[in-house]
Amino acid sequence: MAEELIGNCLIAQSGGPTAVINSSLAGIVTEALNHEQIEEIYGGLNGILGILREDFIDLAEESQQTIRGLRHTPASALGTCRFKLKKSQDFDRVLAVFEAHNIRYFFYIGGNDSQDTADHISKLAIERGYALRVIGIPKTVDNDLVATDHCPGYGSAIKYVATTVKEIAADNESMGQGDLVSILEVMGRNAGWVAAGASLAKRREHPNDPPHLIYLPEVAFSPQKYLDDVQRVLSKKKDCFVVVGEGLVDQDGNYLATASTQTDSFGHAQLGGAGEYLRAMAEQHLGIKARVAKLGIGQRAAAHCVSLTDNNESFMAGQAAVKAAVLQGETDKMVTLIRGDGDQYSCETGLCDLEDVANGVKMIPATWINDDGVSLNYQFTKYALPLAFGEMEVPFENGVPKFVQLNKMRVDRMLDPYIME
Amino acid sequence: MAEELIGNCLIAQSGGPTAVINSSLAGIVTEALNHEQIEEIYGGLNGILGILREDFIDLAEESQQTIRGLRHTPASALGTCRFKLKKSQDFDRVLAVFEAHNIRYFFYIGGNDSQDTADHISKLAIERGYALRVIGIPKTVDNDLVATDHCPGYGSAIKYVATTVKEIAADNESMGQGDLVSILEVMGRNAGWVAAGASLAKRREHPNDPPHLIYLPEVAFSPQKYLDDVQRVLSKKKDCFVVVGEGLVDQDGNYLATASTQTDSFGHAQLGGAGEYLRAMAEQHLGIKARVAKLGIGQRAAAHCVSLTDNNESFMAGQAAVKAAVLQGETDKMVTLIRGDGDQYSCETGLCDLEDVANGVKMIPATWINDDGVSLNYQFTKYALPLAFGEMEVPFENGVPKFVQLNKMRVDRMLDPYIME
Repeated sequence: MAEELIGNCLIAQSGGPTAVINSSLAGIVTEALNHEQIEEIYGGLNGILGILREDFIDLAEESQQTIRGLRHTPASALGTCRFKLKKSQDFDRVLAVFEAHNIRYFFYIGGNDSQDTADHISKLAIERGYALRVIGIPKTVDNDLVATDHCPGYGSAIKYVATTVKEIAADNESMGQGDLVSILEVMGRNAGWVAAGASLAKRREHPNDPPHLIYLPEVAFSPQKYLDDVQRVLSKKKDCFVVVGEGLVDQDGNYLATASTQTDSFGHAQLGGAGEYLRAMAEQHLGIKARVAKLGIGQRAAAHCVSLTDNNESFMAGQAAVKAAVLQGETDKMVTLIRGDGDQYSCETGLCDLEDVANGVKMIPATWINDDGVSLNYQFTKYALPLAFGEMEVPFENGVPKFVQLNKMRVDRMLDPYIME
Repeated sequence: MAEELIGNCLIAQSGGPTAVINSSLAGIVTEALNHEQIEEIYGGLNGILGILREDFIDLAEESQQTIRGLRHTPASALGTCRFKLKKSQDFDRVLAVFEAHNIRYFFYIGGNDSQDTADHISKLAIERGYALRVIGIPKTVDNDLVATDHCPGYGSAIKYVATTVKEIAADNESMGQGDLVSILEVMGRNAGWVAAGASLAKRREHPNDPPHLIYLPEVAFSPQKYLDDVQRVLSKKKDCFVVVGEGLVDQDGNYLATASTQTDSFGHAQLGGAGEYLRAMAEQHLGIKARVAKLGIGQRAAAHCVSLTDNNESFMAGQAAVKAAVLQGETDKMVTLIRGDGDQYSCETGLCDLEDVANGVKMIPATWINDDGVSLNYQFTKYALPLAFGEMEVPFENGVPKFVQLNKMRVDRMLDPYIME
């Protein structure tokens, strides 16, 4: 047993949500209630912004029904942000706020940028001698965090994408006339995990099922090869199903199709045009009818089509964070998901150092991509299939899914307002 | 009771599929088995093309499990086409094929073009003295057929669209920073029924819930009004949810944004249709970040998110077609859906003349659209809500929905091949 640390805990969510990010929140709250060392359970609104501003709510005041309902409510129930602490005074403020509210446990649900922030906070607390335990909980549909077998949120994203591919493919195949290139643009700025997941729409033993061509950021895009690929598929059947990750890059690593010249606050290029780019190419160079669908934010929010496995693991990751902090006295760690060795899929949680995950990006292993560059082999399927497994019954009301909303009973502020520059 | 007509029946599907078009097919097959007057139950592959080519399959040979599975299988299980009979020799060929196979009952599941075709076939048979009963079964996500209260396929399309709106809206609302215009482009070239259906994402008594702005083909689009509308919404909240039907038209009835290389009146290159058009306008004229999702074919194929009401009614419409033809001796009719007068939603089937439905287009009544031109009033909600009501449990296998495929045991051809010009 670790040294006992008594105080309040703070939970926050950061970055782009997933369909199951609130399941991790529910896991943390549920587990925190089991430990007397945790006195108050606070939620910080809108990620790190809410911490700077002391925008805290009392999560223990929420009804049990609401906490249970978080498991089928998409988006970040606490609100989120894309804001990166940079200046040392921002970090000073965070610690001042923690001290003022006696925050001794900080659980941060986010991607690699968020884990980087958590790492800095944790290290600063150690340096200042402020007793604080910081545990990150991974989330990202992009599945690109290192050190964990996979990321909470990914299994649900690919279940939704593969389901959509299968449905659209059935429609394409039922059309009796004319060649068609059917394009689906999916998420994935730096890695092609979501695009690759579309291959789960193929039935086993049917490698020629749609999607026929999957373009991944891991494979430098060649316009001529794309046109050749499409023609090869259309020489055998009348429709060609293309899945493309938004972050398609050329051989020099430049994005091929940006929807605008803007960049976000992290300096990421704002993407969105890869599907339209491929459609225009097929129509202009091959004279073939092409159409595009772009699922957009639906991919990270489709609570009506989550993976039960993913949902359960997201909850479990939240629970594990609390146990690691309270029982093992861990800090400066992120919860990881570890896959069992057996033939039957199993998963348990582990821990890694926050700094190990903070700035890495995990790509699809080159050995999982077939030589054609546009399909995945059995190693990917073996990896991804169990993550999308199982369905969850979600409540509907008046024809649409029913989500919960937190009551958000505010915690009194203790400090002067913080002026952000 | 009508005069007894003994012979074979032929079922075909035409035009764009829906998520429940096969439920009507299942309804026809199931009901046909109840009537001794119907000897063989044939399916024509790829709509009218399969009839010209004598591409028939024996539907009575399909397993009961397959017929039941049609109820959760999207796309046209028999295949479909977009082909309109025009020349008189095409019609002659249809009757010759019918005669060769002793087809006495013809059930055609389709939209207004298909009902027009069925009307011509029916009238020609009467003219030639060939005993034939022709009944059309409506289907279209566009919901734009006249003479029926609503169309099979529509309720499922709006359930999927409204679900997606609610999920994306939750994500938008959880983002802590910055103004955002979130745009969803949906189907509907001539009428705005699908776009209007997005309003089911609003909770009752919460008229300010997303979607905030709905642009319908029924209302001439004004670029300046759009910019004003967005700014009005953003003066009250940080995100503006826009739904736009693909068939947006200006005051002269011209499509504003076709998926081609045209430029609009602002000089924007038009690549992605109506959604991309509105995105570019918001970013360039207001300097506000905007993003688009385009559900595409998913809207008519999302079997994993069908309306139970719609599915049941589609099946019922198929059954009603058989009963009308066999028991009542009807021909040259289309099955209609008739809403009950009571406060509680109820629906039964009726019949209308094929020629009444053949070439009409039903728009949203002007009195259902609010004066702001971008929202629907209670009359629309009262109309649409029951159609999206109820969920259906669909089987999944390996993480994705499980669809059935017909065995397609071929019926021997009786005639020489038909040369189509």
